[in-house]
Amino acid sequence: MKSDFINPFLDAIINILETMAQTTAKPQKPFIKKDAVALGIVTGMIGMAGEQTKGSMAISFSEGAILHVASNMLGETFAEVDDTVVDMVGEITNMVTGGAKRGLSEKGYKFDLAIPTMISGKDHQIHHKTKGPILIVPFDTEAGNFVVEVCFEKEVLM
Amino acid sequence: MKSDFINPFLDAIINILETMAQTTAKPQKPFIKKDAVALGIVTGMIGMAGEQTKGSMAISFSEGAILHVASNMLGETFAEVDDTVVDMVGEITNMVTGGAKRGLSEKGYKFDLAIPTMISGKDHQIHHKTKGPILIVPFDTEAGNFVVEVCFEKEVLM
Repeated sequence: MKSDFINPFLDAIINILETMAQTTAKPQKPFIKKDAVALGIVTGMIGMAGEQTKGSMAISFSEGAILHVASNMLGETFAEVDDTVVDMVGEITNMVTGGAKRGLSEKGYKFDLAIPTMISGKDHQIHHKTKGPILIVPFDTEAGNFVVEVCFEKEVLM
Repeated sequence: MKSDFINPFLDAIINILETMAQTTAKPQKPFIKKDAVALGIVTGMIGMAGEQTKGSMAISFSEGAILHVASNMLGETFAEVDDTVVDMVGEITNMVTGGAKRGLSEKGYKFDLAIPTMISGKDHQIHHKTKGPILIVPFDTEAGNFVVEVCFEKEVLM
């Protein structure tokens, strides 16, 4: 996947967590996903359609990471993934794609953004509709890990 | 929820299953969803954004229903929810929202359609981002049930 396509997503999540949740997210080595198992306990997903390409992005948080982020962002302690935490995952998903949209626009990719949906549960599996490689970028934080998944049509990604 | 807003979704799924999968889907009494538990084993979700409103739709199939539909649509017997079946749930989601988009357009609602995403797993929970009532329409088929969930901003639905 072209780094100039994926980087706006990674820059956005790093900046959002740093400024809004005082959480430093350190990107780890990216890999191509082979199976459909979700990597976290709560996931935000969003479709992105534009003239040049279409695809979807998911952010899947471990319990430790999202409870830490939620507690810092909202200024109260969360001990479980409740409706407020799930809703915040949707907000983060919106903010990341909003930020990525601006970055991608500067590179010539225009997108319409859709409504995010959130999935929770220990055993959920996520499937992207787009035929293309699914790039996973894992992140470490002081409170646990999360992953960003990006899947877009092949032609813009190679 | 206004019936002229929800009916295009219901008409679309009934027509698609009847013509493409020789499956008669009988709508049951709709209800407003209170919790977030998914009602099926595999779910297709899609966001819909337009000038007048935005929201999301999900179709969640029981194992019996989707294996029957997949077997009939693709002309081979499916015994488990594999990648082909999951992909077909995405196609059905696309077709339903495509059909509903045409029906809603005639009623004055214009939508941009997004990319569907699919979730599988026995314990997954789905959360709609939009603040609004979540209307569930259960359907019975000869092979099992499925549900259509529609959640849009309140102002167009009351």
